Amino acid sequence: MSPKSTPKKDALRAKLLEVAEAEIENGGIVALRARDLANEAGCALGAIYTVFGDLGEIAIEINRRTMLQIADHLRGSIEGMENEDPGDMIITLAQAYRSYAEDQPQRWRTLFSIGLPPADSAEGFYDALAPITNLFAEQLDRLTRLSTTSERNRNARAIFSCVHGMISLGEEPRLSAMDPRDLDRMISRVVGTLCDKDQKL
Amino acid sequence: MSPKSTPKKDALRAKLLEVAEAEIENGGIVALRARDLANEAGCALGAIYTVFGDLGEIAIEINRRTMLQIADHLRGSIEGMENEDPGDMIITLAQAYRSYAEDQPQRWRTLFSIGLPPADSAEGFYDALAPITNLFAEQLDRLTRLSTTSERNRNARAIFSCVHGMISLGEEPRLSAMDPRDLDRMISRVVGTLCDKDQKL
Repeated sequence: MSPKSTPKKDALRAKLLEVAEAEIENGGIVALRARDLANEAGCALGAIYTVFGDLGEIAIEINRRTMLQIADHLRGSIEGMENEDPGDMIITLAQAYRSYAEDQPQRWRTLFSIGLPPADSAEGFYDALAPITNLFAEQLDRLTRLSTTSERNRNARAIFSCVHGMISLGEEPRLSAMDPRDLDRMISRVVGTLCDKDQKL
Repeated sequence: MSPKSTPKKDALRAKLLEVAEAEIENGGIVALRARDLANEAGCALGAIYTVFGDLGEIAIEINRRTMLQIADHLRGSIEGMENEDPGDMIITLAQAYRSYAEDQPQRWRTLFSIGLPPADSAEGFYDALAPITNLFAEQLDRLTRLSTTSERNRNARAIFSCVHGMISLGEEPRLSAMDPRDLDRMISRVVGTLCDKDQKL
C-alpha cells in the first residue's frame, strides 16, 4: 500500500509515474532504476519510498496503464465496424494487438515479464487481461448465441492466448518460431478457423 | 566464441555448465550469478571467463539443453502411438509440452526470457524451436498429404505457438488469461479445431 496521500505527495507520485512510464517505454523494465527516477523527477532518492513501497509497485502501475492503452487501441481498431462480420472483427482485434506489440515493444514485454504482485497476493489479477479478452468475447457473442456467457468468455480467452502466443514467438527476434512475414496471414487463418461458424471451438 | 579448448578447460567448462544447469533449474535465470558459480564449481571467479565469454553464453548453452530435453519429452509422449490418429497425437504433444512447462517452470521460463544472442547475431536461431515444431509437422504430414512441406511446417509452427500462448497465459500466476483448470480441455479443443481434417488451417 502507498503511504497516506497529501497534495505534495500526489504531485510527486504523478511525476515519478510520468518519468517511469517514459523509461519503461524506451528501455523496458531494466531501464527502471531508482537513482535515474529520482534524478529525472528532481527529488531525493529516499523520496521515492515516501510515495511507493518499492519499484515493483511503480512497474505494476505502468502495467495497468499499458493494459488500458492496449484495450483502447483494440477498441479503436473496430470503431465504425459494428455491422461487419464478427469473425472479421475478431481478426481486426487480433491484428490491432499485434500492431500494439510492434509499436510499443518495451511496454508490451514489460507487461508480461515483470511488475505484477507475486502469486500469493495476486488476487484480482486473474482478470488483469479482462478488458482485452472482453472485446473478443463481445464479438463471439454476436457470432453465436447458442453458447453460454462463461463458454464464450473461455473461448475468447483461448483465442486471445493463441494470438498472443503467435505474436510472442514471432516478435521475439532471439527465439522465433513464427516467421514475422507470415504472422498477419497466420493470425487471420488461425482466428478464422477458431471462429468459424460451423466448426467453432 | 569460447577460448581454445584443453582437457583442463573442457573439464572446467563441463563442471560450470553442470552447476549452472542446477541453478537455473531451481531458481531461473536470476539464480545464475558468477560468484556462486565459481564457489560451487570450486574455481576462481576469473576462471569462468577463461572458458566462457560471459554468463549469457552459459545461459544459451543451458537453453540449448532445455530445448533438447523438451523435444525428448515430447517424442517420448507419442512413443508407441504410431498407428493412432495424427490429430490425437498432436494433442498428446501439446499436453506433453504443458507438462514440461509445469515440471520444469524455471528452465521453461528461462528459455523464453533470456540467454539467447541479440538479434543481430541470432543467425540460426530462427530455427531454435525446430526440433519441437518438427514433431508437430510430422503428424500434420500424416493428417493431410495435400499441402506442401513448407505449408505444413508453417501450420505446425502456428499450432505450436497457439499452444505455447495458452500455456504461457495459464501457467503465469501473476497475469493469467487462461484458468489453469481449463487449460487441458482448451488445448485439446483448440488443437482439435485447428487440426480438423475438414476445417484445417
